[in-house]
Amino acid sequence: MAESPSSGGRAGFGSRLVAATEARGRLCAGIDPHPSLLRDWGLGADVAGVETFTRICVEAFAGTVALVKPQVAFYEAFGSKGFAILERALSDLSDGGALTLADAKRGDIGSTMAAYADAWLSGGSPLAVDAVTVSPYLGFGSLEPALSLAEETGRGVFVLAATSNPEGRSVQGAMLDRDGRAVELAQDIVDRAAQRNAPHVAAGEPSGPVGVVVGATLERAPRLDDLAGPILMPGVGAQGAGPADVDRLAGDCRRLALPNISRGILRHGPDADALAAAVARAAGEYPA
Amino acid sequence: MAESPSSGGRAGFGSRLVAATEARGRLCAGIDPHPSLLRDWGLGADVAGVETFTRICVEAFAGTVALVKPQVAFYEAFGSKGFAILERALSDLSDGGALTLADAKRGDIGSTMAAYADAWLSGGSPLAVDAVTVSPYLGFGSLEPALSLAEETGRGVFVLAATSNPEGRSVQGAMLDRDGRAVELAQDIVDRAAQRNAPHVAAGEPSGPVGVVVGATLERAPRLDDLAGPILMPGVGAQGAGPADVDRLAGDCRRLALPNISRGILRHGPDADALAAAVARAAGEYPA
Repeated sequence: MAESPSSGGRAGFGSRLVAATEARGRLCAGIDPHPSLLRDWGLGADVAGVETFTRICVEAFAGTVALVKPQVAFYEAFGSKGFAILERALSDLSDGGALTLADAKRGDIGSTMAAYADAWLSGGSPLAVDAVTVSPYLGFGSLEPALSLAEETGRGVFVLAATSNPEGRSVQGAMLDRDGRAVELAQDIVDRAAQRNAPHVAAGEPSGPVGVVVGATLERAPRLDDLAGPILMPGVGAQGAGPADVDRLAGDCRRLALPNISRGILRHGPDADALAAAVARAAGEYPA
Repeated sequence: MAESPSSGGRAGFGSRLVAATEARGRLCAGIDPHPSLLRDWGLGADVAGVETFTRICVEAFAGTVALVKPQVAFYEAFGSKGFAILERALSDLSDGGALTLADAKRGDIGSTMAAYADAWLSGGSPLAVDAVTVSPYLGFGSLEPALSLAEETGRGVFVLAATSNPEGRSVQGAMLDRDGRAVELAQDIVDRAAQRNAPHVAAGEPSGPVGVVVGATLERAPRLDDLAGPILMPGVGAQGAGPADVDRLAGDCRRLALPNISRGILRHGPDADALAAAVARAAGEYPA
């Protein structure tokens, strides 16, 4: 495993991620305790229900999946008590050998972005994860405090680029003038991530630390050939996309494409064994 | 005070906000416990420091300012313990008569956006505020769960439109095709907010519940004439903008322009009396 010169001795996120997918496949399993799933599992749509749901998911996923993605909003809905559940889950997932990705979609500027980076990407934080999703509405450059801290601490960042929801086009499909050439916003985000990854790959890492989010349900995705970073692909499973869509959109970058399934797996709960079997089956569909 | 037909008997956010600014001026005071300010106040950059900083701000602002805006990132940096401090502050601010605005910049799709809406805009949540900032990178339409819940519960939403940081242009200045006409993304966000506010104003409310964020330091802002909703204007004070900038950018919408000062006031702490005097002075510069 190549060691990043910039992560203080610890291997960089790209190296750790590729090692994890080689051992466990490329699946990213979601933990989304939303009210309807809690009800389906016979749990209350309350703090106790979220806690039980999360514990079962952690049991089923921690030892088997490369990357586990809790959806932060479902914890935030219960305030500090919800965050306490998330903190414990993140720690237990790491203990089980899974990498953790907080789906937080944070984005801000200056010292505020630095505080979000501290929350998710600094080793001393109770919410520390291996990677976090961020939103670039304030400009890709506004994310710099998170990108820098991720490099320093051997962690990663996934930047929203082209999301799978139909409303996303009204923003992500807007056109920018770049040196006199028209470029789609989603493509510009991918290209800036690629620039940020280039020195890492030049230094011998198998992937840079800056990933992008690209919906697996899209007919047409941005060009990803030069990204040299991971591609998180939601929309697989219940939302209709499958291995063929992931292959088609990722092309030659298939090795770094991480299909994300949430509902398609979670509907097999609350039985922990059934859930573990479902996630192992799904992981098998996306080998390294 | 006009009563919104859609907010279950409670007055709508627009009505409550205008009443608050008429009583206390249009100032929005920030609570940003960032590490350098904590040090300046002689406090530790830790949970105890954030708690003391927040308590002093709440004492100085709750009884005097129309709108108080805690910056969520600085609480999130301390995980569940940070959120517990924020919960108490929000409750104390409301008890003192200030409206609360959580600067969270949340944005997601579907049931996830609904969970963020629940966190900040449902009455039963420990994090319930009068309004929250949201980010439209996934499309203005993706924010619908928050807009609907805000209407239902008499709360508000401020959508990022044109931010003051230079990197913001690389996204917010992108061009959209709207019925064959080229429109800037930031303008499109303002126009969609205006559409969402129109029925409220038609029903007699002095402002709709959907605000926008427009940097007071911008040379050129989107047209705001038809918004009929509040305009949060960061960049005033330490960042260099003042009453003349607010007036120039807001034009005829001046009555709904809410200048946001954070550092310019917070540098007067930790003495609670000096802080209260500074915030009262600043509020006086922006009368209703």
